[in-house]
Amino acid sequence: MNARTLAELTDLVLKFREERDWKQFHNPKDMAISLCLEANEILELMQWKNGEDLASHLDTKREDLADELSDVLFWVLEMAHEYKIDLGDAFRAKMKKNEAKYPVEKARGSAKKYTDL
Amino acid sequence: MNARTLAELTDLVLKFREERDWKQFHNPKDMAISLCLEANEILELMQWKNGEDLASHLDTKREDLADELSDVLFWVLEMAHEYKIDLGDAFRAKMKKNEAKYPVEKARGSAKKYTDL
Amino acid sequence: MNARTLAELTDLVLKFREERDWKQFHNPKDMAISLCLEANEILELMQWKNGEDLASHLDTKREDLADELSDVLFWVLEMAHEYKIDLGDAFRAKMKKNEAKYPVEKARGSAKKYTDL
Amino acid sequence: MNARTLAELTDLVLKFREERDWKQFHNPKDMAISLCLEANEILELMQWKNGEDLASHLDTKREDLADELSDVLFWVLEMAHEYKIDLGDAFRAKMKKNEAKYPVEKARGSAKKYTDL
Repeated sequence: MNARTLAELTDLVLKFREERDWKQFHNPKDMAISLCLEANEILELMQWKNGEDLASHLDTKREDLADELSDVLFWVLEMAHEYKIDLGDAFRAKMKKNEAKYPVEKARGSAKKYTDL
Repeated sequence: MNARTLAELTDLVLKFREERDWKQFHNPKDMAISLCLEANEILELMQWKNGEDLASHLDTKREDLADELSDVLFWVLEMAHEYKIDLGDAFRAKMKKNEAKYPVEKARGSAKKYTDL
Repeated sequence: MNARTLAELTDLVLKFREERDWKQFHNPKDMAISLCLEANEILELMQWKNGEDLASHLDTKREDLADELSDVLFWVLEMAHEYKIDLGDAFRAKMKKNEAKYPVEKARGSAKKYTDL
Repeated sequence: MNARTLAELTDLVLKFREERDWKQFHNPKDMAISLCLEANEILELMQWKNGEDLASHLDTKREDLADELSDVLFWVLEMAHEYKIDLGDAFRAKMKKNEAKYPVEKARGSAKKYTDL
């Protein structure tokens, strides 16, 4: 369930990696490349589809979408672990920065980038 | 801390979006694009750097890396929420599939893709 | 003009690289990363914009788009040169493969992938 | 051959598209997505490989690399055509900007970004 903690999910990543002795291959650049490739697979699910057609396509591909979001999350968790980043704290800190970049009174109802607000 | 649950972090995403009335802009394709753009920012941190040089660069950029992993996580959480995907369950299910694709006895110590094992 | 040949444009790339003594940095992986980052900048131009709004945005950003397409082309030309690929021949050969993958009688008016035709 | 002009290659793109009546699907965002997906396929060729291992891998995958560079070029040519960008002129103009951003006397032998020169 979503009641799971980041620490529990990270443990699954590390156990998987340890059992296969893959730490040796997981250098930073190839991990970042893998993260991008998985993110692109999500985009590929949506290529050439739009509007209602896209919505119904995603409904039929919900399991694929779940798998690919999980693949992205895998690399986020492993990279955070490798760089000794507490992802829960980092996420809250980044949300504070986002709040400052996009103050409610200026950003409300606007799709502009913070540099254009 | 990493003791935080996915549900707690998702609540931060939804609150941030709600306060700015941004749900109207967050269509699936633009969310997937945003996920890719954030993943690419992590790759950009590593561009033209390798070996020791990359390792020490990442040490000095640890906060940037933490911010960008958080940005990726933001979109993963929001997309999972929008598609009614329980990310904790989805992640465990995907890890089971990964274990089947990369059985320990074949994959141990090998960087090959599952299609080449 | 578009009357320029790939060879002429490749010469500009090589001269630029040679004058800066940058061949030493242009390893295959970082070139491929650079290509992706430039491609993503084109996508970033279109983030959160759709329909008429996107069309008029791109009109005002035509020079940025031209710059970024050129940046992508830079890496395509340099990579082709490094791997001794005659890009003009390669392109024609790939178009033949595309024609076989998407035969006119099946593909006409359809947005399906070749695996679904 | 590389003696081919951009105009000749663009004609192949337009003929291919016209025969299949695909202009209707080629909206700007999906073209930009396609460009990114093709660029990522080049990166995928290099995932988990480094040094000598990567060099020999790319030697055996030279045709794949040629195909994928061609796929990237396809979208660059079509997008330039759609936005009435003369790609040969745009490329020369962008190279002038690159020369100004990275003056030889500062950039020679350095992998730094122009913002750090």
